Amino acid sequence: MTLSLDQIKKLHQKKYRQQLGYFLVEGEHLVLELHKAIIGNPALAQSQLLVTQAYADWPSPLPKKIINEKQMAQIADTKTPQGVMAVAPLPEKKANPNQPAAKAIYLHEIQDPGNLGTILRSLAWFGGFDCLLSPGCVDPYNPKVVRASMGAIFHVSLQQDVELHELTQKYARLACLDMQGARPSSASFKDCDCYVFGNEARGLPAEVKNFSGAERYSIPGSGTIESLNLATAVNICLYELVREKP
Amino acid sequence: MTLSLDQIKKLHQKKYRQQLGYFLVEGEHLVLELHKAIIGNPALAQSQLLVTQAYADWPSPLPKKIINEKQMAQIADTKTPQGVMAVAPLPEKKANPNQPAAKAIYLHEIQDPGNLGTILRSLAWFGGFDCLLSPGCVDPYNPKVVRASMGAIFHVSLQQDVELHELTQKYARLACLDMQGARPSSASFKDCDCYVFGNEARGLPAEVKNFSGAERYSIPGSGTIESLNLATAVNICLYELVREKP
Repeated sequence: MTLSLDQIKKLHQKKYRQQLGYFLVEGEHLVLELHKAIIGNPALAQSQLLVTQAYADWPSPLPKKIINEKQMAQIADTKTPQGVMAVAPLPEKKANPNQPAAKAIYLHEIQDPGNLGTILRSLAWFGGFDCLLSPGCVDPYNPKVVRASMGAIFHVSLQQDVELHELTQKYARLACLDMQGARPSSASFKDCDCYVFGNEARGLPAEVKNFSGAERYSIPGSGTIESLNLATAVNICLYELVREKP
Repeated sequence: MTLSLDQIKKLHQKKYRQQLGYFLVEGEHLVLELHKAIIGNPALAQSQLLVTQAYADWPSPLPKKIINEKQMAQIADTKTPQGVMAVAPLPEKKANPNQPAAKAIYLHEIQDPGNLGTILRSLAWFGGFDCLLSPGCVDPYNPKVVRASMGAIFHVSLQQDVELHELTQKYARLACLDMQGARPSSASFKDCDCYVFGNEARGLPAEVKNFSGAERYSIPGSGTIESLNLATAVNICLYELVREKP
């Protein structure tokens, strides 16, 4: 399927990304990451490239369409776009999401695109985790998230619209990251299989703390300020889980 | 010293912040953090408050000036400002910066305001670290950094314009965070006294790696993507140093 420029413009909105099945990949760095990701994920070869005249000879395995700078400015998310943009197919929904392959992190109503992008980058860096998003999260295919992920979006196993109550069916031991609890350096932390994080402002939803099999953990602090940045908390927990892995 | 609105507008630029000796603290949350910080840092009582009519009765120990919404929009950094803004005095330069009191992190030419803000937040959360910035870093009193720090800027011991070669005079063992090196979970990591991080795009400056007393460390990854976010790398190292502290 080849998208028209009018359709591509609409990919800034989640509704149209889902309707058309594509998302925007903006700028040289991200498109190079997309090229690299095709090897492990052949479906990404269905991407299309849009370039300005300056990039007409830019090497790419993807079909290329040349547009003018005004058109590029219209479809770009950044104020001063580079002359390279791809539209990439959204991944297919997983055939059997009831059989988790790995440990998972669950983000409840995460809102900040930069936070989600940074978390995706760490998930790709460390490897071995599924990323589960609750309903009401910022869309991971939002251009700002894609950009902050620095290409990690192509490498992380993502599931959207996962309800809180589904977690208890799929995972035996939930670690809830909270303001109070045991340290992540406790031996028990590594034995959990899903790590649950709350929204930037509101923290964890109350109900999850009462789930059977839910344990509470907290990153030790000096008490000077109220909270750590959400992405920082997630990244520290991911690190704790892999720091001594061979 | 009471600043005029024209002077306050200029506080968006580093040059004028340094000339006038003040920086901007924007929005309810940050001003509340400023109030709290006055207890530990009485110099901050020299701050002034600017509010719109809607905040005329907002409780504050600071001298308050009422301005109109157009004036607020002119001095604010955000697009839709809240009706509360403070100008706070820049901290005095330390009397004797040659005697470091604590472990330090050194950031070489860090550029992203969000990264520096997040790092300050973690430094305040964990406590016990000095933050040293090289020449050419984003200014920590830039409104975007102040905002991303969520008030942590009032609590962190900061030194600006610290040259790389000064480190070897002040610190016996430098830990350089690099793409290759021992893991931060190695026993030797905790014995270093200054932790050195490079710029977002360029990484560590080559010269630091050749300093005597410089050790190389690297956060283990799966190799899927090229690099971790800089703030993530710093925050993980800070966590490693405090994770088992009583």
